[in-house]
Order: sequence, then C-alpha cells, then structure tokens
Amino acid sequence: MSKEKPSIPKGTRDFGPAVVVKRNYIFGVIKRTFEKFGYLPLETPAMEQLSVLTGKYGDEGDQLIFKVLNSGDFLSKTTAADIEQGSKHLTRKISEKALRYDLTVPFARFVVMNRNEISFPFKRYQIQPVWRADRPQRGRYREFYQCDADVVGTNSLLCEAEIVQMIDEVLSTLGMTDFTIKINHRGVLAGIAEAIGEKGREGDICVAIDKLDKIGAEGVRKELLERGIAEPAVDKLEPLYDLKGSNQEILAQLQTLLGNTEEGQRGLKDLQEVWEYLDNLGSDALTTQNPSGQPRLQLDVTLARGLSYYTGCIFEVKVNNANMGSISGGGRYDNLTGMFGMPGVSGVGFSFGVDRIYDVLEELQLFPASSEVGTKVLIVQFDKESERYALPLLQKLRNAGIASELYPEPAKLKKQMGYADQKKIPFVLLVGSEEMASGKLKLRDMQTGEQDELYIDDIISQLKSEAN
Amino acid sequence: MSKEKPSIPKGTRDFGPAVVVKRNYIFGVIKRTFEKFGYLPLETPAMEQLSVLTGKYGDEGDQLIFKVLNSGDFLSKTTAADIEQGSKHLTRKISEKALRYDLTVPFARFVVMNRNEISFPFKRYQIQPVWRADRPQRGRYREFYQCDADVVGTNSLLCEAEIVQMIDEVLSTLGMTDFTIKINHRGVLAGIAEAIGEKGREGDICVAIDKLDKIGAEGVRKELLERGIAEPAVDKLEPLYDLKGSNQEILAQLQTLLGNTEEGQRGLKDLQEVWEYLDNLGSDALTTQNPSGQPRLQLDVTLARGLSYYTGCIFEVKVNNANMGSISGGGRYDNLTGMFGMPGVSGVGFSFGVDRIYDVLEELQLFPASSEVGTKVLIVQFDKESERYALPLLQKLRNAGIASELYPEPAKLKKQMGYADQKKIPFVLLVGSEEMASGKLKLRDMQTGEQDELYIDDIISQLKSEAN
Repeated sequence: MSKEKPSIPKGTRDFGPAVVVKRNYIFGVIKRTFEKFGYLPLETPAMEQLSVLTGKYGDEGDQLIFKVLNSGDFLSKTTAADIEQGSKHLTRKISEKALRYDLTVPFARFVVMNRNEISFPFKRYQIQPVWRADRPQRGRYREFYQCDADVVGTNSLLCEAEIVQMIDEVLSTLGMTDFTIKINHRGVLAGIAEAIGEKGREGDICVAIDKLDKIGAEGVRKELLERGIAEPAVDKLEPLYDLKGSNQEILAQLQTLLGNTEEGQRGLKDLQEVWEYLDNLGSDALTTQNPSGQPRLQLDVTLARGLSYYTGCIFEVKVNNANMGSISGGGRYDNLTGMFGMPGVSGVGFSFGVDRIYDVLEELQLFPASSEVGTKVLIVQFDKESERYALPLLQKLRNAGIASELYPEPAKLKKQMGYADQKKIPFVLLVGSEEMASGKLKLRDMQTGEQDELYIDDIISQLKSEAN
Repeated sequence: MSKEKPSIPKGTRDFGPAVVVKRNYIFGVIKRTFEKFGYLPLETPAMEQLSVLTGKYGDEGDQLIFKVLNSGDFLSKTTAADIEQGSKHLTRKISEKALRYDLTVPFARFVVMNRNEISFPFKRYQIQPVWRADRPQRGRYREFYQCDADVVGTNSLLCEAEIVQMIDEVLSTLGMTDFTIKINHRGVLAGIAEAIGEKGREGDICVAIDKLDKIGAEGVRKELLERGIAEPAVDKLEPLYDLKGSNQEILAQLQTLLGNTEEGQRGLKDLQEVWEYLDNLGSDALTTQNPSGQPRLQLDVTLARGLSYYTGCIFEVKVNNANMGSISGGGRYDNLTGMFGMPGVSGVGFSFGVDRIYDVLEELQLFPASSEVGTKVLIVQFDKESERYALPLLQKLRNAGIASELYPEPAKLKKQMGYADQKKIPFVLLVGSEEMASGKLKLRDMQTGEQDELYIDDIISQLKSEAN
C-alpha cells in the first residue's frame, strides 16, 4: 500500500466548498435562463465509444482524446505485429472507449440514436465536464466544464435572436454591465471574399483576420499575403476592419459592398431578420447601452470563429472591463448529424465558458453574498449540560430552514470560534450557564463582533429575515 | 469517417430531459438537507492518479478500475520484457491515471493534501459519478452517481444522530412513509462473537449473517459451520436473529448478554448515546411510526455491512413497501486517511443510492408534478403576422418568469400541437386573426382540453399562480 504523498493529475482540480458554491451559482443562473427559453437538460456518459469520437476533431484533436484501456487481459486480442506497429496502431486494439472531448459530438450521437423519439425542433442544454490531453497551462485544464445549448431541426432565425437574448440575460443576471455580443454571418464572410475578388477563399481570409486582436492589421496583412490573397484584394479588405456607425449603418454599408454576391445577400438578409426579431421582442441587447455608448449587440465583420463548422450566424462575447478572452460563442451549422449518417439536421448552438465567467466575476467582485451559502449559525457548547440545552434549539433552527450546526464537542471556545471563522459562518450562538438560566442567548455577528442577547424565537426571526 | 450506427458503451446511460429533471429533484432534496446540517459540497476530478486508487479496493476492486491510457507514444517507455509479462504488468507502464471508483478514497486524498487548510471537524458532501468495470446487469451500471456525506475529525456521536436525522428528513421530504433505518454497532457484533465463545471471529460471523435475508436461518447456519464456528456457538447466536420488543427492550436484552464483554459494552454505550441525542433533538426517527407500528429507527443486530472498514455505528436503510434493496448506508471508521500516511483521522459517513431512490419514487409514484419542470406554455403561430404579434407576448411571459416558447415556424397546427404534447407542455396559446383583433387569446389546457379566452395579463396571473 502506497504511503507516498498523494497528488492529483496535472491539469485537474479539486473544487473545495467555497468554490463549488460559487460555480453552482453560475450554473444556476445559466440553467434557469435556458429553461425559461424552453431548453431542457441532457446528460450523456463520460465515456463514449472511441469510434464515435475518432475523426471528429481533426488529427490534432484525435491525439488529445483520453483513451480508456480495455478491462481485463487487454493484450489477449493483440499480436506481436500490432505492438510492432507502434502506439497509434496499438491504441485501437487495446482501447474501445474514450472520455468525452466536447458536448457537441455526444449530442449529435444522442440525436441520431433517438431520432424516432425526439420531437423536433429539439432544444437541449448540457452542462458537463469534458477531458482533453492538452498541455496544461494557466486557464487551460485537462478537465473542465462545458455549458452548451443547441436547438436542432429548424432554420428559424428566431433561434439566433433568442440566443442573443439568453446571453444578454445570463450576463446581466450575473451583474455584468459592460459586455459586447459580437455577431457575424458566414455568408457575409463569403460575400466579402467574393467582393474583393477572392471568391471561395473565405477560409484563408478568416484564419487571418481572426488574429486581428492579437497581431494587428499589419500582421494580418502579412498573413493574408502569405496565404496567397492578392494585394489588391487585401487593400479592399482592410477598410472593413473598422466600419463606423450604428449596426444599421454598417448593414447598409455592407449592402452596398456585398449587394450583388449571393452569399453576401443571404448573410445580410439573415442578420436583418435577427435584428427584426430582437426589435419585436424589445430585447435589452438592442436597447441597453454599454458605458461606451454602444448597444450590447454589435455586428462585427471581423468575427470569424471556426469556419469549417458554421454555415450561418456566428456569435462571440467579450467582457469589456475585464482582462479575459471570449466568454461565450456559437453559431449555426447545417449538418450536425451527418457524421453519423443522418443528413439534413441543421441547428444553432452556443456555449458559456464557465471557468472564464468565474474569473470575471471574481475580478469584478460580482459574486453576491448569497452565493456563499453554508452554515448560517454555529452553536458553541461548553459542557455536557450546555450541549443538552442546545440540542432542541438546534432542532428549532433547522426546522425553520436555517442551516445550523452545534459544535460536536465541548472544545475550547477559541477552537470553536476558529471553526466558525474558517467556515465563514456569519453567526455564533453562545450557550453558557447564564444564558441557560435566563433563556436569553448570546448571538454574535462574526463580521461586526456585535453581540445581542435574544430569545431563540427572536433569533430565528432575525436569521430568517437576513436570508431574504 | 465512420457512418455506422453510433452507440454508447455497455453499462452507461444517456439521461434525457425528463429523467434529468427528476434526478435533479432528488439531488436537490439531498443537497438542501446536507446543507441544513452544515455539510458543504466538494468536487474532485474524474481522473485520479492510478497509484492513489490501486490497493484501496482489494484485488477484485483493482481489476474493476477503469485505467486511462497515457497520451502520446505510450509504448516509448516500455520494453519487450514489459510486454512479455502480460497485461497486468504492462498496465502500470502505459497508464498513470484512472477513473474515480468511489468518492471515499478521493475524499481521503483531498483531506491529506489539504490537511493544513482544513478546519476540523470537516463536513463535506459529494455528489458525482463513479466508474466501475463491473459486468453490467439490471440495476448495475458502469457509470453511476454516488452521493456521500462524511464528517471527519471528531468522535462525537452527535454526528451519528444527525446522520439518522438526515436520512429521515431526505426520505420523508421525498414522500416516503414506510422505511426503516437499521442501526447496529461493530462493538456489538464483536461482543456477540465473544459472548458465544468465538471471540475475534466476528468477521466470519458477519459475512454469514449478512445473508440472512437471502438464504434464511438454515442457510446462515450451514455457512457458519462451514466457516468453522462451533455448533454450540451457532446455537447461542440464533436467538439473536429476532430479538423482540422496543429498541430500548432490545438494548436491555443485549446488556444482559454482552454486559461483560469490553467491545459489547462500548457498542451498547455508543448506541445508547445516539438514542439520547435523538431523543433530545425530538427526532422524527424515534417518534414517527411506520404503518407496521414500529419507529423508523430500528436496532438490528443482524446488520453487518463491510466490517473491514467500519469500527463503530453502522447504518442501512430499507424501504418496506417497495421491491428494492438498501437505498442508503454508512458507518463510522477510525482511520480514513491512514492509507495515505495520515493516521488518526476518524469520522462517520453515509451515502444515498440515487438510482435506487429514483426507482422507488417511480414505483410508489412519488415524483411530484413540480419535479417535471419545463416549458409552461407554447405559443402556436399561423403565419408571419401572428408570429410578429406573438413576439412581445412571448417576451412578457418570460419577463414574468414563465418558461415559454414560440414555435419557431408557421408549421401545421397538428405538428405544433404534437410538439407541445410530446414535450409535455401543459398550456398552449393560440394566436389567430380573431385573437389578434380582440386581444383575447385562446389558452388551451393540454390535459383537460379546456380552452379559455383571456387577455395576456390574465394568462400571466393564471400561469404564475399555477406555479405555486
């Protein structure tokens, strides 16, 4: 039996009580919003068949999938030749299962397996951990939660509008006031490529302009040229990096520029329709302004995202007053389940980056005190007699729904107070001989140090009103 | 790219929306109860170091741990000799991580790693999935949730009493009315072994009498004799299988029988103290009777559980009016963290079997209607005009906190109604030309088929009052 110091795998984390409670606060806000919009929860197993995952994330992705070793004598189905062919070949012989890499492929797999029972449009959300054998670094973990919502089986742009609303509502409810929901459309990007004389090259163009934030216009220019985009095309492209004006003015400018490209037309029409939906819904994303005076929803033609996947609107969210990358993103895709032989299922989805949202809320000090649930009051005991006296009080407090503890031993007062302190219990109830005689108990507010002498019923009223 | 029909690994499950919602209802009741008693949530990673798990569950357990293959060229650190030595040896060379097998070992590992930051007594609960490479069968899965609460760092029997209370509160809150919380003590079992002349043989005795329910007294007799317990000892043991009387009367009989064994004394003293605590707390477990006329808490000297682990009180819970094994169990242990070189940390813990509780609630039809959250009202649309009219209504409903959807396309009425039906949406709102003209909307109750004509504000009031 090993007696060495135990540790946890690189890139994984324990979440202690204080952190779990805060994370659950974020999950709670997200879930309630999803459900208000008709999305319902789905949970899939941590392990998927390796064959379900392989080939869905590109070669690099395949390398980052955690494979689970077959149980029992896994070598029994291998030959010497299998082993000679090396790790990559051998993997398929000794591993049939793997850990979930994202929530999208399991969702597609679920839809295909349950196509006959599902009523479309199917709106599901899923909040579960995923695992990636990435090199761990600051902010990048090998186990982390994804938090996805998708609707499949409809082309209605109401879904896009509602995604904007859900993002807006979640972030507002979490107390954020300075964020931008960027929106763009794959058709607009294709239209731009065509309009500048590089039809069909939107892939290369997007990879380059996606880096605008990081490497600036000069860097992007260099990369575009390296990727074989002609210099005159690059010249035509650059003015688009900072289109000026309101969203409607930008749409009008794009109309002039892309009006005679088919893809461009499609994109602009879709975007216009999303705006109409939001306008009709009276969405805050259009009417509430950031401190900079801009509405929260912003058309941004330099927004690119993973183009291979998306076919319509794309989204990304930036918190302007925090030092953090995108905290949410998504888009429309045409063919989610094609990978499993079920074509024609289009949909639109997005996800929240919960680790990043957590860090933003910490940075901006937006976690409410109420997100720090836990024991509300600790009864301190001095001896067997005060313990006996305290037990019915403890029961009364709990019957009133107040999370309460009685320190389980007559330990030194300092130790009991230290326990309350470390567990951030806001109130301590002292039951000594004087208190037992009078029935008036000492209630100490651990933050202010103030002490009141009160009957138990008054204590209960006070603690219950505190909770509201 | 594979186009074969996708599947999920044997022994794993997808949980669709209806099931997730019901499971979350159970988790919610459990969490709120744990928190009311001062237990706070902990989450540990799905993957642990293989060395942390190995050797903690016996040889058979080691075989059932899912091992994760090292990333990259895992063969590079192996030799031909490693491969010749077979799967078991090779595993340690190509796998360093494994999936969590239970929540107890990760908890012990967490306590040891954070011993200097933790304030003892440390009360934590943990609700997370675990994975076991068991042969799947009805009711046995390879991925299932455990739901543990433990307090470590105190010997106080108040903890045992509170565990009885938590079990009682959770099951009562879930609507169960006919269950028995069985309690016993390791000292009582040791005392019995001594009293019948087989001191130190309580291990064998327990393994045998643990099967009383399954194989009956005759079967147990046979097994005891096979295990080398002398026939006169077995004769003395058998009257204990059905001690008659109230808990206090049974305690008195045991006092006579075990009074002069040290271990028996320790057990009886502890049990007596647990009863005193519960009495002082006014616990329902003592005062509420089952339909059979017995209190919910029952001293049962034939309750054995995994003896190698427990050292004090042990618990097990049986639902009397459902066809199901134990749904909860636990006990006190002396040396949780000794396996990681940190001796002297005693504690007591228990867990709920959530899959079994789920089945019991289904069997007894105890899931409340409110556990079926989801969309409350679907607005049916007929054309672009009615969609436009419906959008502000949709927003009003959501602003009032009512989970609502607008069907995203002007599909056939039958299709839209079918969607509401399959998603079990209780109300449908019809917005046709008449309704738009009058402002009075048709609200149809999908269960009764009744239809009311109401203004939107009245609809909101009605749906909000339904929710309460």
